[in-house]
Amino acid sequence: EEREQADSATDPYADDPPRHPALRVNSQKPFNAEPPSEILTDTYITPSAFFFKRNHLPVPRVDPGTYRLEIQGLPKGPVSLSLADLKSNFPKHTVTATLQCAGNRRLEMNQVKQVKGLNWGIAAISNATWAGARLRDVLLEAGYKPGSKFQHVQFEGLDHDVTGTTYGASIPIRKAMSEEGDVLLAYEMNGEELPRDHGYPVRVVVPGTVGARNVKWLAKIVVSEEESSSHWQQNDYKGFSPGTDWDTVDYKSAPAIQELPVQSAITQPAQGSTVSCSKGELTVKGYAWSGGGREVIRVDVSLDGGKTWNVATLGGAEEGQEAATSPPPGRAWAWKLWELTVPLPAETQELEIVCKAVDNSYNVQPDTMAPVWNLRGVLSNAWHRVKVTVRKD
Amino acid sequence: EEREQADSATDPYADDPPRHPALRVNSQKPFNAEPPSEILTDTYITPSAFFFKRNHLPVPRVDPGTYRLEIQGLPKGPVSLSLADLKSNFPKHTVTATLQCAGNRRLEMNQVKQVKGLNWGIAAISNATWAGARLRDVLLEAGYKPGSKFQHVQFEGLDHDVTGTTYGASIPIRKAMSEEGDVLLAYEMNGEELPRDHGYPVRVVVPGTVGARNVKWLAKIVVSEEESSSHWQQNDYKGFSPGTDWDTVDYKSAPAIQELPVQSAITQPAQGSTVSCSKGELTVKGYAWSGGGREVIRVDVSLDGGKTWNVATLGGAEEGQEAATSPPPGRAWAWKLWELTVPLPAETQELEIVCKAVDNSYNVQPDTMAPVWNLRGVLSNAWHRVKVTVRKD
Ligand SMILES: [Mo]
Ligand SMILES: [Mo]
Repeated sequence: EEREQADSATDPYADDPPRHPALRVNSQKPFNAEPPSEILTDTYITPSAFFFKRNHLPVPRVDPGTYRLEIQGLPKGPVSLSLADLKSNFPKHTVTATLQCAGNRRLEMNQVKQVKGLNWGIAAISNATWAGARLRDVLLEAGYKPGSKFQHVQFEGLDHDVTGTTYGASIPIRKAMSEEGDVLLAYEMNGEELPRDHGYPVRVVVPGTVGARNVKWLAKIVVSEEESSSHWQQNDYKGFSPGTDWDTVDYKSAPAIQELPVQSAITQPAQGSTVSCSKGELTVKGYAWSGGGREVIRVDVSLDGGKTWNVATLGGAEEGQEAATSPPPGRAWAWKLWELTVPLPAETQELEIVCKAVDNSYNVQPDTMAPVWNLRGVLSNAWHRVKVTVRKD
Repeated sequence: EEREQADSATDPYADDPPRHPALRVNSQKPFNAEPPSEILTDTYITPSAFFFKRNHLPVPRVDPGTYRLEIQGLPKGPVSLSLADLKSNFPKHTVTATLQCAGNRRLEMNQVKQVKGLNWGIAAISNATWAGARLRDVLLEAGYKPGSKFQHVQFEGLDHDVTGTTYGASIPIRKAMSEEGDVLLAYEMNGEELPRDHGYPVRVVVPGTVGARNVKWLAKIVVSEEESSSHWQQNDYKGFSPGTDWDTVDYKSAPAIQELPVQSAITQPAQGSTVSCSKGELTVKGYAWSGGGREVIRVDVSLDGGKTWNVATLGGAEEGQEAATSPPPGRAWAWKLWELTVPLPAETQELEIVCKAVDNSYNVQPDTMAPVWNLRGVLSNAWHRVKVTVRKD
């Protein structure tokens, strides 16, 4: 008991929640971890315990009874909502949406040339069903008038550093207010209360938008003519040319990342593994997703490093929970799991398996990582390449 | 006189309009031509005479006095509008928008492996200022009710083949009705009546969407639950995997191209040209554009085949007519011209100049053409590569 208090006094992370031991930890304090990539495509909906955790700061301890969400910047003055207000005054809206960290697959970009950031593998991406109030409904109730001068909606979390600086981010008002934007003030994840690591009691879910704008432990919303002034909006989470280094970078020259580009990766077989050719065929599995509500329409898979290509099967019955119908146009927020079973040529000893996805704007992934390399290691979406050895038996 | 009549009787193309002799003709009948690529970036607005011409059929002769636009499919019954109705009953809306043929840069894809289609260079893309009635306004006036079951807006042209089949295409109702979609029934191009080659007296302009849906010589609009049944919607203008050939292609398996992916090309220096190093520097120019209203935020240029990259300057004062302010979010319909002046290394004899663009969803162009190769040669948007010889003098 005394020991715990001492820890809490000296270690701001001492009150962080327990986590599943199978997670691959990239950073303990703050906690950043991804699931083993092999299990990522076992289920269409990622169980919350396995959903990647990306914390910038200690997990705050929030009392749901005294929790308030403050809304500021609108002409009729500030509004304060309790958790009960949020749940009872607005329709509950449910959205299945994939979140991806800007740094997903940074490890591969790091292999080209060193970047700054956590060394994420391919699993800083997960898919969940979120429920809560629509941000649009809440802002309209708080007095937002369509057509007004505001351009951005800023969010502040309850998580803070030792100086009291809180995590913050913003999104364009157009996304926030769109009837098709599906931006949530979510209080449920996969049918339960939000876990503490995912923003209990309330987080923002901005479908189609980089994880960093999906602010957790939401304390405050500010409707503004300006973007968030936070470090993470202004001086982080932006993309630059491969020729830009820490001496020349001008963060003002690039827009904050919002919608992410088309992405895919191979979850099975694992990088560097040995596969059996006893059945004479190989099954390859993975995920594919694109930002901005764009739907993945095709995944191409190569077994020869990109020389020849096969078309994978998207979705399919075995995932069970996957929606049978197409998402509404422009609202494809969730990933598609894919798989391909192909004959293994008899003499094969090694394979370089490659995947690349195409979205419904026919955007594609770049062939290689070096030309999209950037000093912060974000937006790492070149073809995913997995080398395996084939065992004869 | 008799000779002309005889021609008209036997040649459906005999009444096509005269064209600028500087155009590079890919096909005379139907007429398909692009401007010399060097002049494409001389002006932000492409003069109508140089705007690329992509006709599928003979240019119809339309009498503006008797012209009617028929609107069908809506509950209150068909509507017929004269040209005067269109001009006087609806606000005139002006939009600067780039149109690009799905087959732009097909020549380069053809060099990987033979494709079917016109051998377009890099100039099947142009930028113009269009004015006309908003399609949205016209459909609302014709009785369209938001939220109804309709999913598509079909267009039919007055151009037809010898059997009477007219050109046709459709776009999603979401694009047609969006207040931010800027879809026009245009009767002006660059401040004048539409030229005959560009759809006189009325064409559809669908900003951010592939040229093929911007139906010219517009005769009929059908609001429908279905896409256009035309050849060009169903069995053409779709993208496929490099592994798909004419024996295996299933046109139903791919969505019709609507929004195009991010694109850029180098217009100066020209492919295979000799440049002087007397000034010790080289200026590279080009265009960049992305579909769906996504704004190009950066163009990277390499002089060493893609090993190292410089950031080009976008737009700029010298183009004169270019808008000084950014387009509204999600409505970047027009291209950006770009340029870069760089020192020429003293010992340089040959250069491989490369460009690649990034849009505000951080989508990028693929490195090489082979992996986006498709049997119809559309969506050709790999890095543009220009080889030049350096002359010492
Ligand atoms: Mo992130
Ligand atoms: Mo086209």
